[in-house]
Amino acid sequence: MAATRREPQVTVHNFSAGPAILPRAVMQQAQEEFLDWHGLGISIAEMSHRSPAFTAVAEQSVRDLTALLAIPENYRVLFLQGGASHVMSMAPLNLCGKTRGGTGDCADYVITGHWSQRAMTEAERLTRVNIAASAAEVNFTTIPPLTDWRFSARPAYLYYCDNETIAGVEFPAPPVLPDTCGETALVCDMTSNFLSRPLPVERYGLIFAGAQKNMAPAGLTVALVREDLLDRARADVPFLYHFKLLAEHDSMFNTPPVFSWYLAGLTFAWMRTQGGVEAMDARARRRSGKLYEFIDGHEFYRNPVAKPYRSRMNVPFMLADAGLDRAFLAAAEDNGLLGLKGHRSVGGMRASMYNGLPEASVDALLEFMADFAASHG
Amino acid sequence: MAATRREPQVTVHNFSAGPAILPRAVMQQAQEEFLDWHGLGISIAEMSHRSPAFTAVAEQSVRDLTALLAIPENYRVLFLQGGASHVMSMAPLNLCGKTRGGTGDCADYVITGHWSQRAMTEAERLTRVNIAASAAEVNFTTIPPLTDWRFSARPAYLYYCDNETIAGVEFPAPPVLPDTCGETALVCDMTSNFLSRPLPVERYGLIFAGAQKNMAPAGLTVALVREDLLDRARADVPFLYHFKLLAEHDSMFNTPPVFSWYLAGLTFAWMRTQGGVEAMDARARRRSGKLYEFIDGHEFYRNPVAKPYRSRMNVPFMLADAGLDRAFLAAAEDNGLLGLKGHRSVGGMRASMYNGLPEASVDALLEFMADFAASHG
Repeated sequence: MAATRREPQVTVHNFSAGPAILPRAVMQQAQEEFLDWHGLGISIAEMSHRSPAFTAVAEQSVRDLTALLAIPENYRVLFLQGGASHVMSMAPLNLCGKTRGGTGDCADYVITGHWSQRAMTEAERLTRVNIAASAAEVNFTTIPPLTDWRFSARPAYLYYCDNETIAGVEFPAPPVLPDTCGETALVCDMTSNFLSRPLPVERYGLIFAGAQKNMAPAGLTVALVREDLLDRARADVPFLYHFKLLAEHDSMFNTPPVFSWYLAGLTFAWMRTQGGVEAMDARARRRSGKLYEFIDGHEFYRNPVAKPYRSRMNVPFMLADAGLDRAFLAAAEDNGLLGLKGHRSVGGMRASMYNGLPEASVDALLEFMADFAASHG
Repeated sequence: MAATRREPQVTVHNFSAGPAILPRAVMQQAQEEFLDWHGLGISIAEMSHRSPAFTAVAEQSVRDLTALLAIPENYRVLFLQGGASHVMSMAPLNLCGKTRGGTGDCADYVITGHWSQRAMTEAERLTRVNIAASAAEVNFTTIPPLTDWRFSARPAYLYYCDNETIAGVEFPAPPVLPDTCGETALVCDMTSNFLSRPLPVERYGLIFAGAQKNMAPAGLTVALVREDLLDRARADVPFLYHFKLLAEHDSMFNTPPVFSWYLAGLTFAWMRTQGGVEAMDARARRRSGKLYEFIDGHEFYRNPVAKPYRSRMNVPFMLADAGLDRAFLAAAEDNGLLGLKGHRSVGGMRASMYNGLPEASVDALLEFMADFAASHG
């Protein structure tokens, strides 16, 4: 069973877009207590999710998350199974079943990249859809101005993706819906920037985020649902896709992904010791700011995104000479800089810099990029 | 961040029904390489699921599972997200959409306990259902004889649960469908006895099992689907519930639960070194045989299940005097015997004995039970 172990030649820096680096202190604690959780003699992954020990872990995780984001009392915190893509089906199934305050079964979508596009395509199979805005024509290098968005008549919800990991485009702030939208719920996929900055939860109907960027190993999705939305589901929604059922069972209608949930709890606790989401935001701005400044100052490198919408989490960049991409990536890996290959749909490079990434990793990347430009420019 | 660590006073034995004990060697390896997988300098949980490293892990896990169960070539091995309850919705959504060989949209269910009951209740919301047989009237203490089952006319599938964890009832062998069923697919929830004995996969249309008993931490479900069944889905099945889409993407349409998948792979590899499912079966029979023999030999204890259908995995037992239940459980815990409380729906005690449980744990349980009976009988 023993793995082949080699000491790494160099310090490693993990820029993977996801699954991604998690805070070192959290991973170390998880390793230390992996076989024996708090002296119980068994792993947190080997005990009933209904045991007093795991129940306490789960409840504490909800308290810590609630504190981090100042989640109002009329929201339910759900720990869903699987990835955020499940919620792309759950949103139309849960929110378009019954009209309320004049809203209908139409859902409005803002398309700013791969993930909002995927969500829209799935919603089209399950309900009526209106594309309120799309940046597809400009290759997802910006976000269309709110004044250009074309809403349907009182949509059930407006859906957008706060941070597109592939295009590297991020909303600077939540969009403001016009009064004509009535009780339209704002629905947001925050998978890749959740817990990276303060968040006005009260402006949303549904926020969701896969765990594998800023929280925990993949297989868990956190959702915040405003309680009044729990009653809008279609009658035939599969039971584990039914927000109301999950809320009624505190996310334990069946066995939840206990290890990821536990580790998310460790991450929430760690974030509180680090200064919370304000500190995460400051670090994210420092990390990404350094990298954008460097790219903008070197003709050898290029980022195509309009400056106000550049992501603090994912920085795609191109070489002036794409013929050097392979050499760049190979040399980067030799220098311990991992996960820099751009998404296959856009090519080039991408540096993802989630909460767990130390600033020293960005410094190492900049040093490497400067050296590479000097020797290949 | 440091956890409060105490040395356990006594050797611990984990009889949890799930999440449950996993093989010690597997857990030790996972702990050892948790921060640094094979010298790459990052965790297996922190790298892209599309990286060469994780792809190799995933492919090896499929090869090992295929070897363990001699899975025929016309089956697809899927690693699904979340728990087995998801598949309770997926079965009707995927198998009742299109008729084939004269089958219709009706699904037949055999009710032998809580889990088949739950599956039937969910299926009723999504398609037509016929209850072919039920042991509810005898409180799930036996399995109705096949000759009494009443099939609908060519059902799309026949669903049963191979091992009911709460009642402690297990099918000794797969049921044989009569010729009149035509192309009816046999569908089986094997969550709690998967990989505990040899399995004639070729007799099934769909087999599925949540990971948290005999494979890995919760949050993963393994499914074996016969390929010809991939084309029977309803048009509006949510995309991550669509077996065909998942098969086309090798279970990576979106980010899979990488850590659980990796650990399941370690378990498969471990099982091969231990003699495979034949060895697991022999161990399970030895463990459960000892316990049943002890219970049957002591009037102080009682198991209500008809002998041919007693589970090798989960042994519920009652005290002659239920007033001693609390004292029994408290004393058991003091002696390091964990997870013995019966399900809240039936009370009493339950010893779950999955593949990872050493026989020495059963010996410790018997010694304790003998002592308790002697001092309280």
